[in-house]
Amino acid sequence: MEIFVYRNGANQVEENFSATDIPELIADKKNVVWVDLMGETDEQVAQAKSVLLDIFKFHHLTIEDTLETRNQPKVEAFPDYLFFIVHGIKPETSSANFVTKELDGYLGENYVVTFHDQRFQSIKLVKQQIRTSTFACRRGAAYLLHQILDQIVDLYMPVVDDFDVSINELEERVFAMRKGNDAILEEIMDLRRSVTRLKRISARQLDVLYRISHGEFPQIPENVLPFYRDVHDHLQRISDLSENYRELVASLFDIHFSVVANKTNDIIKFLTIFSAIWLPLSFIAGVYGMNFENMPELKTRYGYFVVLGVMALVTVSLLIYFWRKGWILQRDDRKTEEEIESSKENKQK
Amino acid sequence: MEIFVYRNGANQVEENFSATDIPELIADKKNVVWVDLMGETDEQVAQAKSVLLDIFKFHHLTIEDTLETRNQPKVEAFPDYLFFIVHGIKPETSSANFVTKELDGYLGENYVVTFHDQRFQSIKLVKQQIRTSTFACRRGAAYLLHQILDQIVDLYMPVVDDFDVSINELEERVFAMRKGNDAILEEIMDLRRSVTRLKRISARQLDVLYRISHGEFPQIPENVLPFYRDVHDHLQRISDLSENYRELVASLFDIHFSVVANKTNDIIKFLTIFSAIWLPLSFIAGVYGMNFENMPELKTRYGYFVVLGVMALVTVSLLIYFWRKGWILQRDDRKTEEEIESSKENKQK
Amino acid sequence: MEIFVYRNGANQVEENFSATDIPELIADKKNVVWVDLMGETDEQVAQAKSVLLDIFKFHHLTIEDTLETRNQPKVEAFPDYLFFIVHGIKPETSSANFVTKELDGYLGENYVVTFHDQRFQSIKLVKQQIRTSTFACRRGAAYLLHQILDQIVDLYMPVVDDFDVSINELEERVFAMRKGNDAILEEIMDLRRSVTRLKRISARQLDVLYRISHGEFPQIPENVLPFYRDVHDHLQRISDLSENYRELVASLFDIHFSVVANKTNDIIKFLTIFSAIWLPLSFIAGVYGMNFENMPELKTRYGYFVVLGVMALVTVSLLIYFWRKGWILQRDDRKTEEEIESSKENKQK
Amino acid sequence: MEIFVYRNGANQVEENFSATDIPELIADKKNVVWVDLMGETDEQVAQAKSVLLDIFKFHHLTIEDTLETRNQPKVEAFPDYLFFIVHGIKPETSSANFVTKELDGYLGENYVVTFHDQRFQSIKLVKQQIRTSTFACRRGAAYLLHQILDQIVDLYMPVVDDFDVSINELEERVFAMRKGNDAILEEIMDLRRSVTRLKRISARQLDVLYRISHGEFPQIPENVLPFYRDVHDHLQRISDLSENYRELVASLFDIHFSVVANKTNDIIKFLTIFSAIWLPLSFIAGVYGMNFENMPELKTRYGYFVVLGVMALVTVSLLIYFWRKGWILQRDDRKTEEEIESSKENKQK
Amino acid sequence: MEIFVYRNGANQVEENFSATDIPELIADKKNVVWVDLMGETDEQVAQAKSVLLDIFKFHHLTIEDTLETRNQPKVEAFPDYLFFIVHGIKPETSSANFVTKELDGYLGENYVVTFHDQRFQSIKLVKQQIRTSTFACRRGAAYLLHQILDQIVDLYMPVVDDFDVSINELEERVFAMRKGNDAILEEIMDLRRSVTRLKRISARQLDVLYRISHGEFPQIPENVLPFYRDVHDHLQRISDLSENYRELVASLFDIHFSVVANKTNDIIKFLTIFSAIWLPLSFIAGVYGMNFENMPELKTRYGYFVVLGVMALVTVSLLIYFWRKGWILQRDDRKTEEEIESSKENKQK
Repeated sequence: MEIFVYRNGANQVEENFSATDIPELIADKKNVVWVDLMGETDEQVAQAKSVLLDIFKFHHLTIEDTLETRNQPKVEAFPDYLFFIVHGIKPETSSANFVTKELDGYLGENYVVTFHDQRFQSIKLVKQQIRTSTFACRRGAAYLLHQILDQIVDLYMPVVDDFDVSINELEERVFAMRKGNDAILEEIMDLRRSVTRLKRISARQLDVLYRISHGEFPQIPENVLPFYRDVHDHLQRISDLSENYRELVASLFDIHFSVVANKTNDIIKFLTIFSAIWLPLSFIAGVYGMNFENMPELKTRYGYFVVLGVMALVTVSLLIYFWRKGWILQRDDRKTEEEIESSKENKQK
Repeated sequence: MEIFVYRNGANQVEENFSATDIPELIADKKNVVWVDLMGETDEQVAQAKSVLLDIFKFHHLTIEDTLETRNQPKVEAFPDYLFFIVHGIKPETSSANFVTKELDGYLGENYVVTFHDQRFQSIKLVKQQIRTSTFACRRGAAYLLHQILDQIVDLYMPVVDDFDVSINELEERVFAMRKGNDAILEEIMDLRRSVTRLKRISARQLDVLYRISHGEFPQIPENVLPFYRDVHDHLQRISDLSENYRELVASLFDIHFSVVANKTNDIIKFLTIFSAIWLPLSFIAGVYGMNFENMPELKTRYGYFVVLGVMALVTVSLLIYFWRKGWILQRDDRKTEEEIESSKENKQK
Repeated sequence: MEIFVYRNGANQVEENFSATDIPELIADKKNVVWVDLMGETDEQVAQAKSVLLDIFKFHHLTIEDTLETRNQPKVEAFPDYLFFIVHGIKPETSSANFVTKELDGYLGENYVVTFHDQRFQSIKLVKQQIRTSTFACRRGAAYLLHQILDQIVDLYMPVVDDFDVSINELEERVFAMRKGNDAILEEIMDLRRSVTRLKRISARQLDVLYRISHGEFPQIPENVLPFYRDVHDHLQRISDLSENYRELVASLFDIHFSVVANKTNDIIKFLTIFSAIWLPLSFIAGVYGMNFENMPELKTRYGYFVVLGVMALVTVSLLIYFWRKGWILQRDDRKTEEEIESSKENKQK
Repeated sequence: MEIFVYRNGANQVEENFSATDIPELIADKKNVVWVDLMGETDEQVAQAKSVLLDIFKFHHLTIEDTLETRNQPKVEAFPDYLFFIVHGIKPETSSANFVTKELDGYLGENYVVTFHDQRFQSIKLVKQQIRTSTFACRRGAAYLLHQILDQIVDLYMPVVDDFDVSINELEERVFAMRKGNDAILEEIMDLRRSVTRLKRISARQLDVLYRISHGEFPQIPENVLPFYRDVHDHLQRISDLSENYRELVASLFDIHFSVVANKTNDIIKFLTIFSAIWLPLSFIAGVYGMNFENMPELKTRYGYFVVLGVMALVTVSLLIYFWRKGWILQRDDRKTEEEIESSKENKQK
Repeated sequence: MEIFVYRNGANQVEENFSATDIPELIADKKNVVWVDLMGETDEQVAQAKSVLLDIFKFHHLTIEDTLETRNQPKVEAFPDYLFFIVHGIKPETSSANFVTKELDGYLGENYVVTFHDQRFQSIKLVKQQIRTSTFACRRGAAYLLHQILDQIVDLYMPVVDDFDVSINELEERVFAMRKGNDAILEEIMDLRRSVTRLKRISARQLDVLYRISHGEFPQIPENVLPFYRDVHDHLQRISDLSENYRELVASLFDIHFSVVANKTNDIIKFLTIFSAIWLPLSFIAGVYGMNFENMPELKTRYGYFVVLGVMALVTVSLLIYFWRKGWILQRDDRKTEEEIESSKENKQK
C-alpha cells in the first residue's frame, strides 16, 4: 500500500503514510489523496480489504468485486464516490494472445483509491510523474484519476498496432504458403479469438468512459470532463480499429481458402497436361506392340522412325493446344503482371 | 410447498407453516415471507394454483404463465407486486446440450413467492443459507430474491466456460481429423445450435435484469438496487461471451472446410507426382515393346541397360523438379515451422 | 356477415342481426358488438364496404387497405377507433411453404369489426367460445379482440415448431446424402426463403403488438393491457425462434458443402490409391515387354515368377504405406468414433 | 413548365398560366397551385431556376440541389415551405438494372412545385387525374403532393416483384447449369448490386417519408397525415422485401458454389470408376505381354481365353463394388427422389 | 501562417498580417478572421503552438490534439469556441490505397483557425475563392468554415467513384483470370482494407457533421445550418456508398472462388474425357500385345485393321456419350449465351 498526499499549494507530494493516517488526510477537503493498494499476496489482500471496509466504508458489494478478478469493466455511482473497474493490457504481450489485468478503484471528492493484484506499468508511470511534478495533483482527484486511465489506454495502442502487423504478416504467409497450411489456419483462428476479445473488452471499456466523460457523474467536475473525453476518444479509436481488424481477419479465411483452391487448380492442371501428353503416346506405342502377323507398317524400313516422329508431332500439337488454351503461359503471365503494374501506375498518376 | 418466515429482529428463520397461515404472516409488514411452491406432481400444481389464486390473488394471466412451461424470461409490474420468469440452468449439463428450467415468481412488499416444476439447486442453496444465517432476510424481500437470482446466474458460469473448452477441443479435433469428418461436422452444428440458444436466453434474461436493476420498479428499494446491478453485470458477461462463442463456432466451419481442402490438395499432389513419374517410364517401356523389324537400339548390346539408366535419370529429374517446385519438401517444412517458432519468440520478447 | 351482441349482464350472446341494426346496437355503450365481415365473394366485399363506409364511417384509406390484400401488419389510431392489420397463418401449412392470410379490423369503444377474405380458424374458435360462454365479452371489446389475436398467434406455434423438425430432418439428409444433392440444396433454399419470410412477418407483427400492449392507444383500457402483453410475449418468442432458425438454416449450406468436400476427398483418395498401385505394376510389366535382344532376366528360368513376386511385394508395400499414412484405416476410424462416444459420455457424467 | 390552379369551390382545374401569374395565384390562400417544372433542355433549366429563385425566392442551396442530379432522397423544413428530394423508378426497367430518377420539389401552404429533368410517369398520371376530377386538389396542396408520392412509390412495386422472379429464374438456371457458369455468376453479381442499391435508396426514402408522415412538419395538416402514413407503409414493404431479397441473392452464391462442387464430385467419381476398371485390365494384358521365355500360361491352349474371362470377371466385380458403394446407383437415386416426393406429400396432407 | 481578414462592408479580403495583429483583429466583432497555420516544419509547428496557446488561449488538450496526428474526426464545444478535427483525402490517390490527412481547427464567434501539417488542396481552393470574391466571408466565420468543409468533402467523391471503377475492373479480371489468381486476391484484399477504412472514417466524420449541422452548437448561427446540412448530406451519400462497396467487395471473394471452382471443374472434365478415351484404347492394344501362342485373331489377315476400326468405334462412341452428357457442347454453349442475350433484350424492351 502506497499513499500519496498533495496538500493544497504544496510543492511536492508527500508519501510514507500508514493506513491509520487516511481518515485525517481525507478529512481536509483541500488535500488530494491517492491510496494505491496491491493484492499480490494474501496479506496485501487482507490489508486492502480492511482499508476499503473499515476506513473508507465502501459498499461491500464493490469490495467483493474489487478483491475478486474476472470482472467486466464498469462504473457505478454511489452518493459519495464512484466505483470503477477498468482493464489494462500487459505492455509486453503480442496481439495474438494479449493479456489484460484488472484495475479496480474508487473516486471520492478528494481521493482516489486503486487496487490491482498485479504490477501495473501505467500506475508506476503516474507515480513517477507525480513524484517529479505536482501538476497532475493540482487539479484534484478526478484529474489524477484521468492521468491513470490515460496511461492505461495509451498502453493498448502498441497491441492494437501489432494486430495490423500480424494481419499483414499472416496474409503474406498465406500467399507464400507451401505445405504448412494447417499451422497458418491455427494462427488465423488465434488472431480471430484475440481480436474478438479485444472488441468485447474495448466495447465495455468504452461504455465506462462514455458515461464518465459525458457528465453523468457529479464526482467529475465540469472542467475535468474534456480530459476524460480525450481518453474516451483514444479508446474509441481502439474500438473502431478492433472492429476493422475483425473484418480483415475474417477475410483471411477466405483468402487462405482461395489460395488453396488456386494451388489445387494448378496441380490438377499439371496432372491433366501430363496425362494428356503421355496417354496418347503410350497408346501409339501400344498399337505397334500388338502381335498381329499382318501389320504392314512393322516391316517398313523407317516405320519406327516415322512413329517416333508422329509421337513428337503429337506432343508438340498438344503443347501448342495447351498453350493456346492458356494452361501453359509463362510469358502471358508476366504480361498480365506488367499490365497490372502499368494500370497501377496509371491510377497513381 | 415450503414457507420461510423471518420475523423482524428474530435470530432465526421459522419454517413449517401451512398455506392457511400465509395471510396472517404477510399482513405483518415487518415479516419477510418466502413461499416456495413445487410443481413436480399434479397435486403440488393444484395446491400451488390455489395458493396463488386464493391467498395471494395474483392476476390470473400470471398464474397461467406460472403453471405452464415454455415461457420466455420476463418481468411485469402490477400495483402490489412484480411477476417474473427467469431460466436457470441444470448444473450437470454440458455446453453442447445444456438444459434450462423455468423459475416463476412474485415479489411483494414483504414476500417472495417462487414456483418451479423441477428441483432447483440454486433454490436449495439459498434455503441452506437462510437456515444458517438470517443475514439474507434482514434486508427485506427484494434482497432475498436477489440472493436467489444471484445463485441462478452463478450456475451459468460453468456451462459458459465449458463452451470455451468445447470449442478448443473441437478445433483440435478438426486439425487432427482423419476420416470421421462428418461426425465432427455434426458436433460443430450441435455446438452452434447450443450457443445460439444460450445467446437468445441470456439476451431475454439480461433484459429482465436490466429493467429490475435500473430502478424501474418501486418494489425494489433503492438500497437493494446495487445488488441487482451486480447480478446484471454477471449476466452481461455471460451474454457477451455467448456472442463471442457464436462467432468462434461459426469460424470452426471455415476451418474444417479449409482443413479438408488442404487434405484434398495433398492427396491430389501425391497423385500427380505419382502419375508424372510412372507415365513417362511406362511410355519408354512401351516404345521398346514395339514390334518394328528395324529398331536399331534393340539389337545393341547394352541397349536394355541404357534404357534402364534413362528411366532412372527421368525419375531423378522429375523428383528434383518437384522438389524445386516445393511439392516434395519435408525439410523446408520443418524450416518453416522453425521460422514460425522463432518469429513467435521474437514477438514475445 | 355475422353480428354478435353481448348486452350488459346478459347470460348469452345474441346473433342474427342485420347491418341496419348496427347503429342502434353500438349506440348503447353498454353493449359489446362484434361485426365479422367475410370477403370471399364480390357480393360480400360490396356489403362489407357499405357497412364500413356508410354505417361505421371509417376513414376511407383504412377501408381501401381492408378490402385490398398484400398489406403489412400495422396499427393506426383514429380519434374514435383503432385500425389494425394482422397476419394469421394457415394451420395446415408446413414450415417450408407456410401461407399467411390477412385479418383487418377496427376496435371502437364498444365494438370490434373484423374482415377477412378467407376462412379463419382463429375467428371460428372465438365464435364457438363466445357462444358457449359470455366470459370473453364481459370485459369489453378490447378484451374480445385480445381473444382473437391470441388465437391467431397461437396458431403460429405449430408452424414454428415444424421449422425445428424440418431443419433437423434436412441436416440428417445432408449427412446421409448420396447423389440427389441438388434436390437437398433446393430444399435448403426453400427453407431459407420461408424462415426469412417468417422473420419479416413476425417482426412487423411484433411491432403492432408492442404498440398495442404498451398503452399507446387509449382504446385499450388499462386492465386489458396485461392480456395484450401476454400475446406480445408469445409473438416475441416466435420472433426470437425465427431468428434462431435463420442462423441454423444458413449453416446448413456450410454443412452441405463440407459433406460434399469430404466425399470428393474420399473419392480422390480412392483414385489415388488405385492409381498408385496399378501404375508401377504396369510399368514393371512394360519393362519386361520390351523387345531388346539382350535382356538377361528374360532367359532365366524363374524370372517370370520372381517378377510376379516383386509385383506382389510392391503392392503390399504400397498398401502398408497408405495404411500408415491413414488413408486406409477402417479400424482406426471405429476407434475414433468410440473415442468420441466415450468423450461424450464423460461430458455427460 | 405547366401550372395547374384549383380555385376554391371550382369544378375544374385551370391551366395555361405563365410564370408571371404565379405571385398573384399563390397570394390567394384559397387557391391550390401546382407548378411542374421540366429540366430536359438547358432553356427549361434556366427558366426553372428563375422561377424558383425570383418568384418563389427559395433558399439558394435547395435550388442548387434541385438543378443538380445525384442527390440522395431528403426532406428539409424551412419556415414557409418544405423542400424534398425523392427518387422515382423508371417503370420499364427490369430489376437487374433498374434506373431511378430524381424528383425535387417544394411544398408551401397552398402550392406544390416539382422539378424533374426526365419525363415522370407518376407526374403524368396525377395530371390526368386532376384534369378529370378536382378531388385530389380539394384537400389542399399537401394532399396533392401525397398523390404524386403515392404514384411514385406504387411504381416501385413491379420492379420489386421482378426481383422475386429474377431470383427464382436464376436459381433454376443455377441448378440446370451446364458450362456457362461464369455468365450466371455475373448475373448473380448484377442482381446483388441491384438489390443493394434498392435497399440503400429505399432506406433513405423511407426516412424521408417517416419524417413527413409522423407530424414533424407543420406544412402537412393533421388530416392529411394518414395519407402519408399510407405511402410510408407501402415503402416500408418495399424496404423489407429488398432486405429479404438481399439475403436470398447472397445465398445464390452458396448454391451456385455447391452445385459446382456437386458436379465436380460427379465427374471425379466418373474418372475414378473409369480408371479403376481399365488400370487393372491393362495391367493383366501387360503381364502377358512380357517376353519371359518361361511363362507356362502362354503355351496353354485356352490361356488367352481364360485371361479374357478373368478380365471380364474383374470388371464385373469392380462394377458390383462401386454399385454397392453407391457410386453407380441410378435406381437408388430414383428411389430417393420418390421418397422425397412422398415425404413432401405427407407434409402437405 | 496566413491571415485573412474581411472587414465588414469591405470589398476585399486583406492579407499580410502577423501573429501580433491577431488580438486586435478579432477584438472587432465585425471582422471575420481566418488564421491558417501550417505544420510542415518544426519551426512552423512551434509558431502554431505559440499562436494557439498565447494568443487564442485555447484549451491545452485541444492544442495537443492539433499538433499530434493520428486523431479521429471529432468536434468538441468550449464556451467560446468549437474545436474540430476532420480528415481530408489526398486528391491524387486511388481508391485502393487512398491517403487521408488531418485538418484541425477552431471556430470562434468571428474567427476560424485551421492547422494542417500537409498541403491541403481544399484550403488552397477556398483561399483562391475569397481572394476573388468576399462572398464567402460576408456571412461570418461559420459560413467560411462551411466552405472549407464543403471543399474537403467534395474531394472524397472522386475517390469514392473510383471504388466503383475498381470493383468493376476487378470483377472483370476475376472472370478473365488465367494463372495470376493470387495477385487478384491480393488486390481484392487491398480493396477490402480500403473500403473498410473509408467506412470507418466516413462514419466518424458523419457523426461530427451531424452534430454540427443539427444545431447542437451555438457557435453555428441558425441561418448557416442549412449549409452544414448540405455538407452532411454529401457525406451521408459517401458513407452509404462505402457500405455498399463493402458488401460488393465481400462478394468478389465469393465470385473469385466460384470462378476458380468452375475452372477446376473444366480441367477435371478435360482430364476425365481424355483418360476415358485413351485408357480403353490402350487396353485393347495391350490385349493384342499379349504373347499367348494361341490367339486366333492374331493370325487373321485383317485382324489388325479390324482392331483399328474397333478402336475408332470406341472413340466415336465415347465422344457421343460425352456430348450427350453435355461435357462436350460448344454449340449448346453458344446457344445458352444467345438465350441469355435474348432474354436480356426482352427484359430491356
